[in-house]
Amino acid sequence: MLTKTPHLFDDATQVAAGDSRWRGKTSDDYWAFVGPFGGVTAATILRALIDHPQRAGDPLSLTVNFCAPITEGAFDLDVRLVKANRSSQHWCVELSQDGGEVATLATAVFAERRPSWSHQPAEFPQARPFEQILPFPKIKPPWANQYDFRFVEGYPDFSGAKQDAPPASAYSKLWTSDRVPRKIDALSLTSMSDAFFGRVFHARRELIPFGTVSLTTYFHVDADDLASEDITRVLAIADAKIFHKSYGDQNGELWSPSGQLLATTTQIAYFKA
Amino acid sequence: MLTKTPHLFDDATQVAAGDSRWRGKTSDDYWAFVGPFGGVTAATILRALIDHPQRAGDPLSLTVNFCAPITEGAFDLDVRLVKANRSSQHWCVELSQDGGEVATLATAVFAERRPSWSHQPAEFPQARPFEQILPFPKIKPPWANQYDFRFVEGYPDFSGAKQDAPPASAYSKLWTSDRVPRKIDALSLTSMSDAFFGRVFHARRELIPFGTVSLTTYFHVDADDLASEDITRVLAIADAKIFHKSYGDQNGELWSPSGQLLATTTQIAYFKA
Repeated sequence: MLTKTPHLFDDATQVAAGDSRWRGKTSDDYWAFVGPFGGVTAATILRALIDHPQRAGDPLSLTVNFCAPITEGAFDLDVRLVKANRSSQHWCVELSQDGGEVATLATAVFAERRPSWSHQPAEFPQARPFEQILPFPKIKPPWANQYDFRFVEGYPDFSGAKQDAPPASAYSKLWTSDRVPRKIDALSLTSMSDAFFGRVFHARRELIPFGTVSLTTYFHVDADDLASEDITRVLAIADAKIFHKSYGDQNGELWSPSGQLLATTTQIAYFKA
Repeated sequence: MLTKTPHLFDDATQVAAGDSRWRGKTSDDYWAFVGPFGGVTAATILRALIDHPQRAGDPLSLTVNFCAPITEGAFDLDVRLVKANRSSQHWCVELSQDGGEVATLATAVFAERRPSWSHQPAEFPQARPFEQILPFPKIKPPWANQYDFRFVEGYPDFSGAKQDAPPASAYSKLWTSDRVPRKIDALSLTSMSDAFFGRVFHARRELIPFGTVSLTTYFHVDADDLASEDITRVLAIADAKIFHKSYGDQNGELWSPSGQLLATTTQIAYFKA
């Protein structure tokens, strides 16, 4: 079932190696409203780190701060290994275009993970099987159509606020897969952690001006764990705790179908309402 | 009730202004096991940004990556305004000592927050009043004794794992106040977001080698909101979702006694077990 030719996602997150300066480019396939889909920008940054010759270990945490819009075309990634320890590495990446100001600022931690006591207090969300749910229909922004979203709870209703009705729930539970199936790795987990619709859209039942400001994802499995899962989709949940003075949060979990918590993610986003 | 002389916390997080290079120092009062308490390091970094002449707006998000141990004494803070927009700023801070490698790497977003639609889906945790709960007793690490912890749920039991018993809950609900009351501001919210005991201590009922690797805090109120709250304590909850291959997560909420969600926080930490 998996594509043998390069997947659109791999094309979109392609990087050309440099020493400290790497190159990438925006992808029409993953374009959002006014710029590239942030999840793919984050994944591109992570790919530059994973492909870096000095990289050791697997992604443990990634924080991406979206500082300014990225315009269509090429961008530079200034990649710096800030500190290397025996079993962990701290990286900093600055994305810019044409020698201009920083548009995206990211930090990442990589770690060689050792066997340890394991315990998963979080409860696996119950869900109908992927195959029994219709895919969310195609919509305008190209990036969303690269995914196959199958909502278990919190199906999007962006038909507008009901008169005098309380805000709708910001909670969603859905299967997320690449539209063309692709094996889940740290790159797709990164992108999928930003592939929820804005929580404020759900709560207000409408699309409004919105932009992620800062995104943090923690990876709870290493490459070996992911290899043994061998999956092309995750069960994802997302919720929000507060919307106040033009900013709101999002927290999410990405689960393997077998019940392993793969990644947790949180973000703070701007909205206009 | 508030101290008029500089509070220990303000002394501990003191910074000497520079242009791009600021100075701070570790505090014996907030010492942890093998270095300074990370919450105070994070707060010191935030203070350098808040006090910076170019700073505009209030802290919105802060991510602190703890790269290497900080030794007792002075440290330098290389403070850089990476990108300034009309109503937000992106900062990067590197902490080092004696011209050595980076020990702490942080990014922060500041924003001038505008009135907007407000909605708080998160539920205020129910709790007995602060006054009706005994303070957690003094313990060995100095930093913990600068706080007055009053546990509502998840009282620490570090008496050791019970034979064949399942792991204990990683959830805690507690009032957190400076031992010497101090008005809650973004600095104390930062520090308090790291002032939970390691979740793994709760789950395993024992103290084990442990260290926060990356901490992210989102501020859901601005300085005006905090001024109008005028409080010296927060109701705090923390939990964990997974411990696996030597790393575990923590997510937490800091609430005002009146039921306003002030900050949310998440971290990933190393443990040896």
